[in-house]
Parts: sequence; C-alpha cells; structure tokens
Amino acid sequence: MSPPLRLGIAGLGTVGTGVVRIVRQKAELLARRAGRPITISAVSARTRDRDRGVSLSGYAWEDDPVALARRDDVDVFVELMGGSDGPAKAATEAAIAAGKDVVTANKAMLAHHGQALALAAEEAGCVIRFEAAVAGGIPVVKALTEGLAANEITRVMGVMNGTCNYILTRMETTGQGYNALFEEADKLGFLEADPNLDVGGIDAGHKLALLASIAFGCRVDFDGVTLEGIQDITLDDIRHAADMGYRIKLLGVAQMTGRGLEQRMSPCLVPAQSPLGQLEGGTNMVVLEGDQVEQIVLRGPGAGMGPTASAVMGDVLDIARGARISTFGQPAGRLGNCTRAGTATPAPYYLRMALRDKPGALARVATCLGEAGVSIDRMRQYHHDDSTAPVLIVTHKTNRDALDTALTGISRLDVLAADPVALRIEAV
Amino acid sequence: MSPPLRLGIAGLGTVGTGVVRIVRQKAELLARRAGRPITISAVSARTRDRDRGVSLSGYAWEDDPVALARRDDVDVFVELMGGSDGPAKAATEAAIAAGKDVVTANKAMLAHHGQALALAAEEAGCVIRFEAAVAGGIPVVKALTEGLAANEITRVMGVMNGTCNYILTRMETTGQGYNALFEEADKLGFLEADPNLDVGGIDAGHKLALLASIAFGCRVDFDGVTLEGIQDITLDDIRHAADMGYRIKLLGVAQMTGRGLEQRMSPCLVPAQSPLGQLEGGTNMVVLEGDQVEQIVLRGPGAGMGPTASAVMGDVLDIARGARISTFGQPAGRLGNCTRAGTATPAPYYLRMALRDKPGALARVATCLGEAGVSIDRMRQYHHDDSTAPVLIVTHKTNRDALDTALTGISRLDVLAADPVALRIEAV
Repeated sequence: MSPPLRLGIAGLGTVGTGVVRIVRQKAELLARRAGRPITISAVSARTRDRDRGVSLSGYAWEDDPVALARRDDVDVFVELMGGSDGPAKAATEAAIAAGKDVVTANKAMLAHHGQALALAAEEAGCVIRFEAAVAGGIPVVKALTEGLAANEITRVMGVMNGTCNYILTRMETTGQGYNALFEEADKLGFLEADPNLDVGGIDAGHKLALLASIAFGCRVDFDGVTLEGIQDITLDDIRHAADMGYRIKLLGVAQMTGRGLEQRMSPCLVPAQSPLGQLEGGTNMVVLEGDQVEQIVLRGPGAGMGPTASAVMGDVLDIARGARISTFGQPAGRLGNCTRAGTATPAPYYLRMALRDKPGALARVATCLGEAGVSIDRMRQYHHDDSTAPVLIVTHKTNRDALDTALTGISRLDVLAADPVALRIEAV
Repeated sequence: MSPPLRLGIAGLGTVGTGVVRIVRQKAELLARRAGRPITISAVSARTRDRDRGVSLSGYAWEDDPVALARRDDVDVFVELMGGSDGPAKAATEAAIAAGKDVVTANKAMLAHHGQALALAAEEAGCVIRFEAAVAGGIPVVKALTEGLAANEITRVMGVMNGTCNYILTRMETTGQGYNALFEEADKLGFLEADPNLDVGGIDAGHKLALLASIAFGCRVDFDGVTLEGIQDITLDDIRHAADMGYRIKLLGVAQMTGRGLEQRMSPCLVPAQSPLGQLEGGTNMVVLEGDQVEQIVLRGPGAGMGPTASAVMGDVLDIARGARISTFGQPAGRLGNCTRAGTATPAPYYLRMALRDKPGALARVATCLGEAGVSIDRMRQYHHDDSTAPVLIVTHKTNRDALDTALTGISRLDVLAADPVALRIEAV
C-alpha cells in the first residue's frame, strides 16, 4: 500500500470536528477505498482547550494556520476556517507556496479569490478542491466538473442556502412572518455570524458563481451575480403564490445568453409541483442542464457536520487516489473573462402592490405597465378593509428593464401605499 | 498540452454514434477540459455501410472488435456493443490483456463478469469505468465511488429502468392495461431485443448489483438479486395504490443487514408524494444513503443517445485527466463475498385477491393471515358484479416468509379465483 496521505486541518468547528471524526473512526474503510491510509498530522483552531467531542491526541497543534499549512508532515491543507480573507486566505496561499494540495469548504474565499488561488496552485503543481463549499453533502462540483464534462452546459440552477429555504418553508407551514422565523433560525444556530450572508443571498451567490465558473469556463465573477435576498418576502406573497400554484424559493440561476453570462440569486416563484418547488426545509437542490445530458437534478442536505465533512473527505480521497483536476475544471489561465449579460432573460413576473383607495388608481397602474411594454396576463384586486387595496398582477414574459421602467413610473403616480413587490416566475 | 487520448469504439448503435458525435463536434471543449485532445483511432460495428448520421472519416475500420481492442493506436477501448458474453467480453478481455483502459456501458457483462474483469484489469494496470451502464446520464457511479467515498453506505435505492417506469406511468395516465402499453413501448423502440431484460427487472437488477458492489465492498452478486418484473401489475393495482396515496414503481433496493446483503428489484408501492413516487416516464432516480451524508437523490434521463454518450465521455475524460479508480471503488481482490440476507427486511405489504363468492371466504383468508403471524392494517372488500369479490389488504410490517406461508395457505383454501398479488410497501 502507498504511503499515508497526511492532512493538516485548520478550523475545528462543526465541519472540522466532523472531518477528524471520520478520519479517526473510518481509518480502515478510507484506506481500502483510497488505496493508502489517511492520517492527520496537525490541527489548528482559535481555541485549543475546548471539548469538541472528539480526541485530538496524536496530532500536533499549531496556533497559526499559516505555520500548519507549511509543515513538512502535511500533504493536504484542509481549510475549514471560513472568511474570504484573513487567516484562511493567508494559510491557503502559504500551503500552495509550500506545494501542498488544498481542500476547502470556503465559498467566500473562492468567490473572491478563486482565480488568483487557482493560478497559484497550478503554477505550484497543486490542486484546490472545494466540494464542501457548494451545497453541503451533494457531490455537485464533482458532477459538473467531471461527470458532465463532455457537455456544453446550458444552465445551472438551484436552491443552495438551506437557511433561506428553511425560513421560507416555515413561513408557509406556520403562518408566521419573516421576522419571527428569522429569529427562530437564529436560535437554532442556522444563521451565519453575519446573517445577511444567508438571507441577503450572498452565501448562495458565492456558490452560484463557483458553479458558473466551472459550467461556462469563465473566471469566477461573484460581483456579476445579481443578488436579492428574502427579507422582503411576506406571508401575503407566499399565499398568493400558493393560490396560483407556485412556491417562493431563493433560486440561483446561471446561464450563458447571447448577451453574456447571466447570474442571478433572487427569490423566485417556481411551480409547486416541480422538483425545486417541492423542496422542504434545509435541503438543497441543484439542477444541471447540458446539451447532451438534458437535465440532472441533485438533492441533499446543504449543511451539517456529517454531510459537509463527507464532501471534504470526498475531495481528500480524490487526492489520495491521485485525481488532479484543475480547480474550475480547466487550467485557470484559460478561463475567460465572460461578458455580463447586464439584464436578465425575459420572464413573467409576479407583482404585488398596495394601492391607495383612489378612483382610477388601478387603471393608471395598468396604463403605466402598458406604456412600458409590459403586458398583463392576470390581475386581481382583493377586497380591502382599510384605505389600501392589495392588487396582484402576473405579467406576460417581459424584460426586467421594461418592468423597472413601469415600476418607477407607477411609484411616481402617487397611488401606492408601499413599494411594489416584483418577483420573477422562473421556468424550471 | 499532453498527447491525445486515442479511443477505439466498438459498437456504433445509438450510444456509439452519440460518442462519435461528441468527439467530432466538441474537440476544442474536450481538449480544454481534459488537458489533452481526445481522438478516435478506429471503430468497429456489425454493419459497415449504414448511414449513422455522423461521419466516420479518418477512423480505421475493424470488422473484429477484438482486433480493434488490440490496436497500437488505441489507448482506451470503448465497449458499446452490449451482451454479457460473446464479442463484448472477448474484446474487453483482449483490451485489458493489451494494457488498454476500458470504458463500457455494458451492465450485463459487468453484472456477470465484473469481478473477473476487474481483477484482470488491476493486474494489467488498467482501469474499467462504467458510468453509462447505470442510470444513463446520471453520474451515480461517480457520486457513489468518489463523492460519497467517506461514507459507510447504508442503502442504495432507485428506479433504474426507464422502460418499466414509462409503462407504469402510462398505465396511470391512459388507463390502458399492461399489454397495450408493452406494445406501445415496443413500437417506440424502448424495449431491449429480449424484452424480459426490461419488464422482468433483469436490466435494472444488473445495475443494482453493480451499485451494491461499490456501496458495500462486495463482489458483484447479480444472482443474489431477488428479481420480480412488472408483467403482473394490473390497472386495478395502480388504482388501488393511488387511492391509498401510493404509486407503483419497479424499485431496486440494496442494503446491508444483520443477516447479510439484501438486494431486491421488484414492483413496490412508494408514497406518491416522495421523490421516487413523483418520478414520471423514462426518468431514472437513484437514492444514496450514507452514515455521514444522510440522503442524496439523483434524478435524470436513464437512456437515450445524448445522456448515455455524456456518461461514456465523462469516463473518457476522467481517464484523460489521469484519474485511476478501481472498478468497484477498491481493489477487486479485497472485495468480499457477502453473505446473502436470504429474506427481505420486514415491510408492510399490499395484497389483492379475487375471492370466490362463498360465505365465510373472507374470514378464512383473515384467519390464514393471522395464523402465519401477518397482522392486517386495513382491509377492504369491493362491490362485485360477478362471482368473484376483489379484496384489498394492507398488512402491518411483516416478514416476507410469513407472508408467503400465509399466501400458500390461502391458495389451498379454494376460495381464490386467481393467484393473489403481493406488493411490498417501501419506506423511501
């Protein structure tokens, strides 16, 4: 049997602890599958003396992850600290400079510095693998980079933030509003330290940008992702959507269009009967579409100790078995700078407005939409018991720019009691 | 860039033609992703002069696939002929003996000879990859062998024969019986030359046995798969199942139990609202359960030119990129001979009987079940307008042996007008 593959693990939170646990408890299974033992040489974390429920005996301790990354007895640097910059980036760079392979779960770091890190790794003859950074336990980076490698990918789509999906599905089932369920998610420990990473769609946007880079052969362009969070979704929107056979999901879509690469992460209406529409709670789903394979749907847990550690260890085993894939599926130097599509592909939209109870208000809204070239598929005005009337409009397929023009015009009419809500209806 | 990877393709049916098409049309994309050009040196098929809609110019022709497999200008032998023995096996053996890697879509060959071929390949330093053999375009072999490699797999489950699922879902939607839809599937070219491979569950059983080998580290044991086809499923069963919130699927289940490895491919009732229950038409779905990852669900096209060729080319690209995974995820010599579980894990069953219209008949059936230790959850006797009364029984969780004892006893009672139908209700 080949010599052991020796890991240095930086970060001993949930995922790091899960990785240590697997290495300790499954030594025989891993060695059989990898063709060589997988061992841990050293670990590093912010706090040394904390009961993590797993023994660290036999591992060297490093206070400094950079020192860990450079150790001679480390073959693979496993970066599980998180954060786009700071120690995670410094240690990853040090590992690469020292010729170590890197396995990371850090979507933020790769979304911001993926191209530079990939170039550095390739120059140093190292690999960076990041299955755990996208959709937890689902082997979607592998499916896209390897399994579907003979496809011209046409679209990548998915629900990739379990916390948002948890909040949205709990709004449906409990009838509680966004704020109450945000607090519930917080109490359950589902939220990042900066909750805007979750509910603002940033975390999911990072993931989408990584998948888009692999899918379309572009440098990661997180700044090119149009981001919209779920903070403004109301129970009314969820109920209206359900009445029309839809559910609201924080949906990421990346597709190559004639205008360039389109990357969006935003709350969308999807058919309730579609696989995406049926997704409950913290589960993730990624849909991969290619010219040969048509559509592949992958579903699984998007977070948690076991699933995320499973993804980290999948990457470790790949390296142990000798697989050496470029970070984004092809040499980083050959990745293009994709043009941004600028505006989203036309789609129908769901609009909700609170109309002031004035004669002719609805007619003026409709006129404004028509003048911007937005045609109405369905419109419904609800019974109102105060001075505002809820109005629901589903448009025909329209350009987002035209819609924004119309909404600006409508806002100027002085007939709205609140900002209008516009949600895309995605064909999935 | 590295030297080209040169393919020799044996078999130019739908899949082979699809592979040639991808290699010709996507040369630049493949080279970028593989880090080297992918070329075809030679091809072989039964008939040379046939318009396949794709040019074969520039490729040497071999009448004999064995000769093709041995050619000096072939690095990877791509076996797309099919058949468990005969030319496919002879040529695969010749390729391995000549030190070539093998990519195949041939589930029958691997289900029967996988262990011997894997051993031979490892001795010769070659790899055998077979993503296209299981669930068409879904990269499930990769997900299981690589992505989930750090998991103790607990269960593998799936709908893996698109033709059967097509027939069953068409029975539901059209109200036509099995025979009519068997003929429809035949006309559409959905059936294997020996249709029993499809409707008898053999083809899907092959696939299950391959996945089970990877999942549980056992030698492929196709003869250990309990097989039951869909030929006896009636419209009545489909309607009764629907009434109770179930759908009937040809479901494969492999799991390691205290009694040994359990492998079953049989029509089962699954909850209509579950992912498996919602599967329509020719689509395949595989559910992978592991101790770390919980549950991963993969869905996609189970057959067809594009999807299957996509899977073949995924394997080719892996080889081009230097990935060298053991056929079943670990050295074949280390795969165990798993004990067969013998009998299926207890489950509730759906029973349908046509009772002769005799006083006390139903009571005698119920007594017979009770004496065998099978307890009844629900029982319903339908209105009857001839001399037989349809009776529907859902049992509590029961041992299959106990159920068979009861059914044998009931058959001896001389109260049945036809053989009873017993379908397992699977928790999915």
